[in-house]
Amino acid sequence: MTVRTVLSSPTKEVAIGFDQPFCVIGERINPTGRKKLAAEMKEHDYTTVQADALAQVAAGAHVLDVNAGVPLADEPKILAECIQLVQSLTDVPISIDSSIIDALEAGLAVYQGKPLVNSVTGEDESLERVLPLVKKYGAAVVAISNDETGISTDPDVRYAVAKKIVERAQDHGIPKEDVVVDPLVMPIGAMNDAGKQVFALLRRLREELQVNTTCGASNVGFGIPNRQLMTGHFIAMAAGHGMTSAIMSPLHKEQMDAVRAANVLNGLDPDCAEWLRANRPVVEGEEVAGRGRRSGRRRRG
Amino acid sequence: MTVRTVLSSPTKEVAIGFDQPFCVIGERINPTGRKKLAAEMKEHDYTTVQADALAQVAAGAHVLDVNAGVPLADEPKILAECIQLVQSLTDVPISIDSSIIDALEAGLAVYQGKPLVNSVTGEDESLERVLPLVKKYGAAVVAISNDETGISTDPDVRYAVAKKIVERAQDHGIPKEDVVVDPLVMPIGAMNDAGKQVFALLRRLREELQVNTTCGASNVGFGIPNRQLMTGHFIAMAAGHGMTSAIMSPLHKEQMDAVRAANVLNGLDPDCAEWLRANRPVVEGEEVAGRGRRSGRRRRG
Repeated sequence: MTVRTVLSSPTKEVAIGFDQPFCVIGERINPTGRKKLAAEMKEHDYTTVQADALAQVAAGAHVLDVNAGVPLADEPKILAECIQLVQSLTDVPISIDSSIIDALEAGLAVYQGKPLVNSVTGEDESLERVLPLVKKYGAAVVAISNDETGISTDPDVRYAVAKKIVERAQDHGIPKEDVVVDPLVMPIGAMNDAGKQVFALLRRLREELQVNTTCGASNVGFGIPNRQLMTGHFIAMAAGHGMTSAIMSPLHKEQMDAVRAANVLNGLDPDCAEWLRANRPVVEGEEVAGRGRRSGRRRRG
Repeated sequence: MTVRTVLSSPTKEVAIGFDQPFCVIGERINPTGRKKLAAEMKEHDYTTVQADALAQVAAGAHVLDVNAGVPLADEPKILAECIQLVQSLTDVPISIDSSIIDALEAGLAVYQGKPLVNSVTGEDESLERVLPLVKKYGAAVVAISNDETGISTDPDVRYAVAKKIVERAQDHGIPKEDVVVDPLVMPIGAMNDAGKQVFALLRRLREELQVNTTCGASNVGFGIPNRQLMTGHFIAMAAGHGMTSAIMSPLHKEQMDAVRAANVLNGLDPDCAEWLRANRPVVEGEEVAGRGRRSGRRRRG
């Protein structure tokens, strides 16, 4: 049994799937906690957005999340502008990220291809407003497993909420393959069972509900030292438990190392080709093939 | 349901178990591929053995594997001497490692406490010679899931061999808790399914056969670049699939980082205490407690 969520830009398709290498959704284009980016976005200055888009794709992002949640700014307009810019710069599909329905619609209206909408929750208002948009634009959607009662610490409740969202999506004509469930990972420093809990949930979501999954990976290490190291191991272990994508930072080596190792160990990197490409020792004076770079010196013939 | 394999030295008990932090079995005291160590052992010079024992325990080993397999040397005598030396230097239990029955017996005869015998295989000769020794000395044993036909690439066969060994051990009066199964991990560079296969096997060994597990972790990365990084992620992912110990190198940071992260994420490091101890930022001029080191400089009072 395999499940694929196919996203697209005008020139590229990317599949999140049980039989696919882990999908890296780059999280950087988000003004939350980034004063400089927020100030720029408010002025419709996209210098940092441009740099972040290019850097994340170069580092291995398969999809870029774009969030323009700047308080007291014209979020729909800014989000649409960011999406158009990012689509002009790169060929990766976009995850359109907003909690404001008008912003999601503005982003969807300008997007070319099949995007991911981030996100719908199990709250009735969210379901009734987001799902029709997802259907209208033929998008896929991230389903976050919380509802009116908040985020349950009971994994059974979180599973039930995910199931409800998938069913509601189907009622709106959105196939299950186009719902990517985020089971929500809690900070491990605050809740010692957070890892175990989300691993069990990921496994159920894959085996019982048969959906693709994602999560904001770095949340697990919130507040603890050496957070990137923890995030990396979390990503690999979660991939081992069936998680098929993460909203993460491709600019952190620990996270990309984990993705590449998990792909190899899950049998999703044939002949370890991607691992070899990323980890091949650079030999002085040797021309490096397939890396998009050349050594200045060449061996004399 | 929990399963514990309790090993001991005269002053310390160490449990490998489903509810225990991952057990690190230090692999360094082994002359295979180490010319200097082999030459020293042959001369009954244990300078390197001593250094390796202390360094591994300082780095976090819970158990030390001791192997004295030097060709054309008096292995039983050397192994017994190494074990006595290591027991005089440290309080961790030992994994007595040899393919020679007389060496195992010599090691068992001098060992104080309850050791791990490494190993018995599914071959009839091995079963009939090793298991009585394990029983006689009240030891626990590593069961390697190969037999006369070699190492099967079929995980069902490897599971069946493990099950056979556990049953034979029981026939000899050795309880299941004292058999730690090594499902054998193949080099991922040679066999792309090696990771997936061993993860599935580890899960079955834990859930169906209900035994503790181990493996020679670094074997997975044999021949590929950045082997330690791969070994680390393998350890964490395998721990996620239920592996409870590994024969590994505590001297490689990538491997110990993985063990500590897996313990946190599997809910086996209460309050992240061990993670915090190992990853706490060192503050200049501050005395570091619980690390076995002191800063040269002290804050003026």
